[in-house]
Amino acid sequence: MVQYNRSDLDVSFAALSDATRRGVLEQLWRGDASITDLAEKFHMTLTGMKKHIGVLEQAGFVTTKKLGRVRTCKLGQRRLEEEAAWIDKYRKLWDARFDALDQVVEEIKQEEKHDERNRKK
Amino acid sequence: MVQYNRSDLDVSFAALSDATRRGVLEQLWRGDASITDLAEKFHMTLTGMKKHIGVLEQAGFVTTKKLGRVRTCKLGQRRLEEEAAWIDKYRKLWDARFDALDQVVEEIKQEEKHDERNRKK
Repeated sequence: MVQYNRSDLDVSFAALSDATRRGVLEQLWRGDASITDLAEKFHMTLTGMKKHIGVLEQAGFVTTKKLGRVRTCKLGQRRLEEEAAWIDKYRKLWDARFDALDQVVEEIKQEEKHDERNRKK
Repeated sequence: MVQYNRSDLDVSFAALSDATRRGVLEQLWRGDASITDLAEKFHMTLTGMKKHIGVLEQAGFVTTKKLGRVRTCKLGQRRLEEEAAWIDKYRKLWDARFDALDQVVEEIKQEEKHDERNRKK
């Protein structure tokens, strides 16, 4: 099933689903770097790194600028707000769901105790 | 470049990079559902939905159980802790980096003002 209309979250989660790309972002926190530097640091071909940078650029995580023959990468403006919000919502609902389950289990236990007491009477 | 050794974060971010799969998780917050129900709800073939459920199951977001001819899906044990931690770290470092940039810009402005005052003397 092909999704032709990819949302922002689709693009950004896909960009984050690769250890090298997450590593590149961590590297760019420390400072701007050329694609050549990044390729060397991650033991990768220039073509491979260009592809990763393209994915990060498309997701808004990285911006690049070419000066002469060197393309420099820097951290983009995307602050992962939407991504953090989705994950936060997921975790809250997850907790609520399993807390609710705990509560149901607790209620069943209490009922059992109650039934037991009634039987003993 | 193929990564043979995919980390947990790779698998989970990839699982989240599809609007249908995120929708299925939101649906399962509300209660367990069969693959047939989910396929209908998301206007998808049974084969398409099975594939999505497989991805979610591999990432630990969903567990399934077959009873007779019906396979029921429920929310798995994965609480997105690692994912939330990574995104949180990213956001903090992003803020620190751009705050530091603001600080540098402010320092430059102050120096310019200082130079201007000195020139006027």
